Amino acid sequence: MSYNSFGHVLRVSTFGESHGPAIGCVIDGCPPGLEITAEEIRAEVLRRASGKSRHTSQRREKEDVQILSGVFEGRTTGTPIALLIENTDARSKDYEEIKRQFRPGHADYTYWKKYGIRDYRGGGRSSARETAMRVAAGAVARKWLKEKFAIEIQGWLAQLGPIRTDRDMQWDTIDDNPFFCPDPARVPELESYMDSLRKSGDSTGARVNVIARNVPAGLGAPIYGKLDAELAAAMMSINAAKGVEVGAGFESVAQMGTVHRDEMTAGGFLSNHAGGILGGISSGQDIVVSTAFKPTSSLRIPCRGLDVDGNEVEIVTKGRHDPCVGIRATPIVEAMMALVLMDHVLLQRAQNG
Amino acid sequence: MSYNSFGHVLRVSTFGESHGPAIGCVIDGCPPGLEITAEEIRAEVLRRASGKSRHTSQRREKEDVQILSGVFEGRTTGTPIALLIENTDARSKDYEEIKRQFRPGHADYTYWKKYGIRDYRGGGRSSARETAMRVAAGAVARKWLKEKFAIEIQGWLAQLGPIRTDRDMQWDTIDDNPFFCPDPARVPELESYMDSLRKSGDSTGARVNVIARNVPAGLGAPIYGKLDAELAAAMMSINAAKGVEVGAGFESVAQMGTVHRDEMTAGGFLSNHAGGILGGISSGQDIVVSTAFKPTSSLRIPCRGLDVDGNEVEIVTKGRHDPCVGIRATPIVEAMMALVLMDHVLLQRAQNG
Amino acid sequence: MSYNSFGHVLRVSTFGESHGPAIGCVIDGCPPGLEITAEEIRAEVLRRASGKSRHTSQRREKEDVQILSGVFEGRTTGTPIALLIENTDARSKDYEEIKRQFRPGHADYTYWKKYGIRDYRGGGRSSARETAMRVAAGAVARKWLKEKFAIEIQGWLAQLGPIRTDRDMQWDTIDDNPFFCPDPARVPELESYMDSLRKSGDSTGARVNVIARNVPAGLGAPIYGKLDAELAAAMMSINAAKGVEVGAGFESVAQMGTVHRDEMTAGGFLSNHAGGILGGISSGQDIVVSTAFKPTSSLRIPCRGLDVDGNEVEIVTKGRHDPCVGIRATPIVEAMMALVLMDHVLLQRAQNG
Amino acid sequence: MSYNSFGHVLRVSTFGESHGPAIGCVIDGCPPGLEITAEEIRAEVLRRASGKSRHTSQRREKEDVQILSGVFEGRTTGTPIALLIENTDARSKDYEEIKRQFRPGHADYTYWKKYGIRDYRGGGRSSARETAMRVAAGAVARKWLKEKFAIEIQGWLAQLGPIRTDRDMQWDTIDDNPFFCPDPARVPELESYMDSLRKSGDSTGARVNVIARNVPAGLGAPIYGKLDAELAAAMMSINAAKGVEVGAGFESVAQMGTVHRDEMTAGGFLSNHAGGILGGISSGQDIVVSTAFKPTSSLRIPCRGLDVDGNEVEIVTKGRHDPCVGIRATPIVEAMMALVLMDHVLLQRAQNG
Repeated sequence: MSYNSFGHVLRVSTFGESHGPAIGCVIDGCPPGLEITAEEIRAEVLRRASGKSRHTSQRREKEDVQILSGVFEGRTTGTPIALLIENTDARSKDYEEIKRQFRPGHADYTYWKKYGIRDYRGGGRSSARETAMRVAAGAVARKWLKEKFAIEIQGWLAQLGPIRTDRDMQWDTIDDNPFFCPDPARVPELESYMDSLRKSGDSTGARVNVIARNVPAGLGAPIYGKLDAELAAAMMSINAAKGVEVGAGFESVAQMGTVHRDEMTAGGFLSNHAGGILGGISSGQDIVVSTAFKPTSSLRIPCRGLDVDGNEVEIVTKGRHDPCVGIRATPIVEAMMALVLMDHVLLQRAQNG
Repeated sequence: MSYNSFGHVLRVSTFGESHGPAIGCVIDGCPPGLEITAEEIRAEVLRRASGKSRHTSQRREKEDVQILSGVFEGRTTGTPIALLIENTDARSKDYEEIKRQFRPGHADYTYWKKYGIRDYRGGGRSSARETAMRVAAGAVARKWLKEKFAIEIQGWLAQLGPIRTDRDMQWDTIDDNPFFCPDPARVPELESYMDSLRKSGDSTGARVNVIARNVPAGLGAPIYGKLDAELAAAMMSINAAKGVEVGAGFESVAQMGTVHRDEMTAGGFLSNHAGGILGGISSGQDIVVSTAFKPTSSLRIPCRGLDVDGNEVEIVTKGRHDPCVGIRATPIVEAMMALVLMDHVLLQRAQNG
Repeated sequence: MSYNSFGHVLRVSTFGESHGPAIGCVIDGCPPGLEITAEEIRAEVLRRASGKSRHTSQRREKEDVQILSGVFEGRTTGTPIALLIENTDARSKDYEEIKRQFRPGHADYTYWKKYGIRDYRGGGRSSARETAMRVAAGAVARKWLKEKFAIEIQGWLAQLGPIRTDRDMQWDTIDDNPFFCPDPARVPELESYMDSLRKSGDSTGARVNVIARNVPAGLGAPIYGKLDAELAAAMMSINAAKGVEVGAGFESVAQMGTVHRDEMTAGGFLSNHAGGILGGISSGQDIVVSTAFKPTSSLRIPCRGLDVDGNEVEIVTKGRHDPCVGIRATPIVEAMMALVLMDHVLLQRAQNG
Repeated sequence: MSYNSFGHVLRVSTFGESHGPAIGCVIDGCPPGLEITAEEIRAEVLRRASGKSRHTSQRREKEDVQILSGVFEGRTTGTPIALLIENTDARSKDYEEIKRQFRPGHADYTYWKKYGIRDYRGGGRSSARETAMRVAAGAVARKWLKEKFAIEIQGWLAQLGPIRTDRDMQWDTIDDNPFFCPDPARVPELESYMDSLRKSGDSTGARVNVIARNVPAGLGAPIYGKLDAELAAAMMSINAAKGVEVGAGFESVAQMGTVHRDEMTAGGFLSNHAGGILGGISSGQDIVVSTAFKPTSSLRIPCRGLDVDGNEVEIVTKGRHDPCVGIRATPIVEAMMALVLMDHVLLQRAQNG
């Protein structure tokens, strides 16, 4: 197995550290013939990019995507597509102070316990910078799904800290604000909440939802490659994720069976508590997934921690950080949905084509 | 890849249908030298078994576990361990009526769309009967983890329908009641709630939690084999699961960073919102996972559905069913935790041994 | 990964020891809708079975194949197909004497070094008995390949010890003799050679070839799932295999490029030195593979060896053994060819369907 | 699965085309703490490089290896190691003429049949240029094996066309000549043979052997991850490979069991016909593998072929080509041996550590 790869027939491997020379990915198994350009991929990556607003980290990456292989005369060839983005705005000196410290809530301590060595600059491999490559790979999957099946994937911010943001869904406004908030009326509230957070030096969590439409019935590989299980792993593998729901999710706990079961008529299902997946296989309904992201742990408010020698130290994180990592999670969640779906479309062709 | 297998270095494959001659599993990668008997495995399987109380399905399986390979003179040899349980109490005629119908909330429709054929008897492969083999395989993993690392795994019912059951945890009473309820004072309430459900013909969901203690720091394979991502997939692959949380889970959404981040002192962590996992790697704290199970969809209360020809039909499920599938989920959740942890202990030895 | 499994989209796992209660396999990924019976599978297994003639081991197994799952009303359902054969003629007492000895040329010593424990009865897991399940799984693949693509697979004995047997190929006689010898005129010579071997107590090697016809062009997954690389692994994984060739094989070493390269005309290729595979992908020509099998190491002629305590001992193997293991290799080689091809047909559908 | 990756716990993925901007690889699973520099890796890559002598292709690549990730302050960190080499001397215009032609003996036709599109420049992905990344990855594995286990790997040219070159092994001269010929007395003969080949415009095959010393007993994952099976796949996956032998290889066919079986004494094995592997597991003896390479198919001597429209054409390959691809295969064969062994050392730690 490959620790830094995922997928079955469509397989993505990523590499790179936050402050290394570059980050990159290899997409293996993409069918030949898809037209794709570096610029299209970059456009997706920029949606996730930091520096998009004053509410996210001020690191400014150009996100120049290079296609190193697998595309010939503008079309995929079936060979591995390697993508590379050079890191151009890493400020490693910000991290000198925490070089020998374990920031609570971060992977510093656990990487140290696992490997006995760590690239402390910006979190190294554990940095969310890695997710830029998920978005890059996802751009390829998204385009393929749209062209072949008209599958559409849309994520949105459903909650930021205490603020529920998706009661009034206005789909076409999601990309108009830096929060991916679907309700424009809520944006000023989000902005002032974020400003107060930044002032206080604290942070908060978020809930990000994603929907996939026009997914054909029959995708998913029971028993241990169930579509919902793979989506759960995909979302939970994103930095800061702490929970995943499909369809009714935790609301199912207190639901009655007569409510939860989605009745079927000749006109289709009468509800979608299942979130589009039954028995691990897509039903043709919209696939709906919700992911919880914890608040950023990098704060300038001091806290108690340890250093590599086991001494207690006061930890203050400087660097440039997002007061809410969930704000930038929407494109990542969309990318993971796209990659899992495309993998399962290919798998389904294999076994039942 | 194998649709019916999971794990990396420790790999479990299951097979069998609810009403076929037998169900079984193959455990590949178990280190040599572990003492294990069929009786020990059976004891775990019986914890999950139906017919344990009046609150679960009345199907009565003997659950006679046969060890077909991989154990010699009472000890594992390093070769694949095949386990088999014959199905002895399948009543296939109960399913004649729904032979050509898709029961809402079940995998009937999706298997049909995927495969164009289905074993309709008791749900066939999609039946929760399959989970007996997870518990069987889990019994091996549990014993190994306990012997080698003193790792202890304990699951419990945290909520059943509207009833929260784990406010007063009395750990040693969990196995004393058919609900795996940790608070004996709540058991009568659960019983009367279940009786009323059975009377009404309806069903409800449940939340099942699990904790693993004494897990060494350093387990987990970033980025795409993160311990939490693999646990999420493992739990979400269980029948009827709709949501998974690690540590604070969805509560993280509204938490502040100063609250969520678990400060560290020389005496250890001061809290465990992380649920024992940071950056996808175990921290040495208890690992805590919570899973939501939807209500049973098989009800004798009629509902609207379709048959294989697309006609609308009224669906009434007879057969023998659990009014709350979550009641029996505790041993399954424990088994999945054990299997994922053992796999990652072995992986960690490979890369950092 | 799974040590006892192979294949990508079609994945076979085997289990069982020579003298355990049963051997079995799980075939995962077979498309739904294939008609298959236990009797058809058994017919293939019997082709490999010992006791077929006086030239092979006198162990007599009934080879009663049971289908435990994955087949419903005579057709595959897409769920894992589990096959089981009980061992009925194991004579474990034959092995008491070598219980603490390492038979040279066998896996006794290496299993001991790897696992520190071994099932010494008949070689345990390392016995060629395991190959019966490859043949069983192969029977399913063969039927599928024939029905869907008219692919035909035929193996034969090409050489037995010093006797070259395939200079005069008479295809339809291969199954008429216990050697799978394609030239009936050579059978008496083989019989008398085997008789003399048995008298002397010695053994010899063999070369077994296999051809697959009507294989569509385009199968194979470059770079590390090349069709020839996977066939090489498949054949080399068979007990006693020491060499594998594709097409011209080792003859290529001294060939000139003008001879080796297979020129193409509108009527097709003018030769087939490539053995049907170019760049790891099938060309549409016949796929031709040759495998070398070493002589049986279990001999009644004594030799020098060690016991588990490191003492030198004289080793004499009693038991029931084949003086030439290659005699029974033909159905195994055919099965491995079928399984690899079917896997790649499915893979090709996934990526280019 | 990943088409362009291999290995289990140590997993290498390569990407890149012969005339694309760069080739690269990702090494996933390398334990932390190994000191490694780009210069060390480059030194290995240069051993394989073309332009080393007048007997190989005149393409001159600088082979500047960049380490993009996974190494921090000179040591591996346990995260994926990405290596990149820019292509600087590709002359794509040489291939304009064969743009629409299928060169016999090449992958042109099969890639076309598989993908319906191909990068015709220098063979694209099917070019042996890809093997530079195997050598780069192998450099890491080699160093690790040597430091941790004192494992030494040495390949050599055993035969070139009709000339057998390893009857008088002088181990320390192998790297002194451009052929990796172990017998300096044979080098003039090889030179004049190559000169005559070049003059005639023809090409020839080669046999390359490799030995690994100090390999601990116990490596290999029976049944379907046998060490010999994995080595067979690894070698057969190299461009132009047509056959693989372990130990006595095809000589086993005519050997007697009393000759082949390697007797054991307190002082060790008395022979090594097994090539260091019994039952798929290393025995502690030297591991010996031999690989056959076919003659180069790119010749300036015209031959019959087809174009993409199915028309018969006369094919003449210009470009810059090796008259014997086997000459440069020695470092590749060594690299594949190193990568397979390191993977199995890690696997063995997982299961039996």
